[in-house]
Amino acid sequence: MRDDDAAPATESESSSRGLTYAQSGVDIDAGDEVVDLIKPILRRTHGPRVIGRHGAFAGMFRLDWNEKLFKRNYREPVLVACTDGVGTKVLLAVERSTFHTVGIDCVAMNVNDLIVQGAEPLFFLDYLGLSRVKPKETASMIEGVARGCEIAGCALIGGECAEMPDIYKPGDFDIAGFAVGVVELDRAMDATRVRKGDVVIGLASSGIHSNGYSLVRRIVKDARLNLDERYEELAGSPVSWIETASVEGPDGPRSAPRLIDVLLEPTRIYAKPIVRLLKSYKRKKVISGMAHITGGGIPGNLCRALGEQFDAIVDRASWAVPPIFRFLQRHGGVAEEEMWRVFNMGIGYMLVVRPNFVDGVLRKLRKYGENAFVCGSVEKGSGQVRIV
Amino acid sequence: MRDDDAAPATESESSSRGLTYAQSGVDIDAGDEVVDLIKPILRRTHGPRVIGRHGAFAGMFRLDWNEKLFKRNYREPVLVACTDGVGTKVLLAVERSTFHTVGIDCVAMNVNDLIVQGAEPLFFLDYLGLSRVKPKETASMIEGVARGCEIAGCALIGGECAEMPDIYKPGDFDIAGFAVGVVELDRAMDATRVRKGDVVIGLASSGIHSNGYSLVRRIVKDARLNLDERYEELAGSPVSWIETASVEGPDGPRSAPRLIDVLLEPTRIYAKPIVRLLKSYKRKKVISGMAHITGGGIPGNLCRALGEQFDAIVDRASWAVPPIFRFLQRHGGVAEEEMWRVFNMGIGYMLVVRPNFVDGVLRKLRKYGENAFVCGSVEKGSGQVRIV
Repeated sequence: MRDDDAAPATESESSSRGLTYAQSGVDIDAGDEVVDLIKPILRRTHGPRVIGRHGAFAGMFRLDWNEKLFKRNYREPVLVACTDGVGTKVLLAVERSTFHTVGIDCVAMNVNDLIVQGAEPLFFLDYLGLSRVKPKETASMIEGVARGCEIAGCALIGGECAEMPDIYKPGDFDIAGFAVGVVELDRAMDATRVRKGDVVIGLASSGIHSNGYSLVRRIVKDARLNLDERYEELAGSPVSWIETASVEGPDGPRSAPRLIDVLLEPTRIYAKPIVRLLKSYKRKKVISGMAHITGGGIPGNLCRALGEQFDAIVDRASWAVPPIFRFLQRHGGVAEEEMWRVFNMGIGYMLVVRPNFVDGVLRKLRKYGENAFVCGSVEKGSGQVRIV
Repeated sequence: MRDDDAAPATESESSSRGLTYAQSGVDIDAGDEVVDLIKPILRRTHGPRVIGRHGAFAGMFRLDWNEKLFKRNYREPVLVACTDGVGTKVLLAVERSTFHTVGIDCVAMNVNDLIVQGAEPLFFLDYLGLSRVKPKETASMIEGVARGCEIAGCALIGGECAEMPDIYKPGDFDIAGFAVGVVELDRAMDATRVRKGDVVIGLASSGIHSNGYSLVRRIVKDARLNLDERYEELAGSPVSWIETASVEGPDGPRSAPRLIDVLLEPTRIYAKPIVRLLKSYKRKKVISGMAHITGGGIPGNLCRALGEQFDAIVDRASWAVPPIFRFLQRHGGVAEEEMWRVFNMGIGYMLVVRPNFVDGVLRKLRKYGENAFVCGSVEKGSGQVRIV
């Protein structure tokens, strides 16, 4: 609990003699200030299932709701949990002092993994390691996490903010998240449902998401790209989260966004539409499998949704690869196949769907605000993904 | 899931032309090697409640056991979760290339917080951020986490190992953990149970545990202490986890352990004895409150177990402060009160117990292997802890 950091505060008047904890580099007041700044933000994510208790050492979340208003009980609940970070995307955030978006990435990387198992996200915790707590910056990071939790529909019930100037360079930080969800045992996804003739549906990504940033940063450096430049080729890229970026040109037509804003666009969170979709098909097993497209790209992740006896054939002509990928490829001289192995290439999440239900699934996902399209199909095979 | 790191592996043959992901600094083979090394270690922590599925994006854990053999259902389950790291204790581990103990610390810091709420730990996930995966070292860290999970009686169902040479200096790393437990709603601890006349019981710590290491390292540096020296004053300090340390002198009597071994002794995990104790008192509310003694020491943590109308009086003469604390105090010239604010001073966990049950609780805890003793009592007051 972040309260831990605050715990020593009441005891921290400086001692009249001898070496003190404060002198060894731990700033307790800054930690307190962050706790004050984030309290109302955390509370926004708390529904009636979160139990807030004075002095609690850990976050508490009711699995079953027995209050009349919220009655909801699980028959055979399976808890689903994962942890992930944002990788070196944080270094771009540090370089541009943009702290409010990586928290969303952190939630996205985790909840998008949870929902692949059929789970509904329940709650989230974050771990921030940094060199020095700067209250406003740190609160801004956690605000991003809370915003991500709101988008995903889960509660932010705890976190830790560890100040370690001897590990993290000044200004640097690392962020990791931890998500827990629940799924009824008989509705949990597994790789045995996929059948020949199933259809692959893709959901558009919001950009690079949070994988491949070591390569992105290498390309930016080697090709001496200017992060502040509004490259014409990037026109039309989503930059929904960057408040400072003007995408509306002075004379009406959209001008291209800055490169940095395209690169820092947060990972899209698919939790609400996917959970809603799965709930809309009570009893019917319409969805054979799903995949969150992360490191490894489409081939490295869609294969995890297939059994060992089926291949997925993905038709790269069925959607337009967003401009940022072609831009990086050209400036980095990256081979086409390598691009597909590293990046999501415009698809952040995939569903394998029974053929009879494709139209219904597409209609629902679009109604929920997703850009969803058919991009492939399942054939007899050996668990491979072929991009054709 | 750590599988994520491995996902791109099948796609990583080097490209014949252009910049590749491997060239940007991500070593996929080393990640694979770690996954192979840790697989059997993880499995040791998996009971029948863990659902292992091919290609899973997240760990899965059954809350209720419906198999006849393990039948166990919760009536009103409350999930309890927390996250914490090991702080700058990792830097001592790095300095001495001792990687198998901080994983135990990481589990301890989390599960000891969970049990304070009355929860039984269910599962754990770890996040490792590091500069470069060195398969044996990294596997050794995760082996420590798995060992901690075995001691705590929980399953290690996932983790992430993030290689970020631009954030972590060569050799450096950070470790964070996430623990989830469950408690029946009507057995969850809160701070309203404490009454005048309740008795405070302490459980011995194994040493410094995982708080105050910024100060420890400062003292070691300023006083030019030799980490390899076997200072006579440290004789009798527990060094149970350091396989290389010979505590048996050549001629029979115990010689003092090395300073580094005392400092790297892992945090004691109180989960099994506390869970067993709580289960042994079905229906009776014998335990009024508990506290994990971390940053802030006894005053900063025991206060969290008290309501606003009671004080706890802790008698410092009721146990012998272990030699390492007095050793550091003397060499650092640290004031007595500051020591109590920063360190656990020999007590890692505290229970506030109804007076009629003190003998029974002590007997049980000792039977479970804990060094337990009465060290204070509860009076009318305002939520303060007074060390007298």
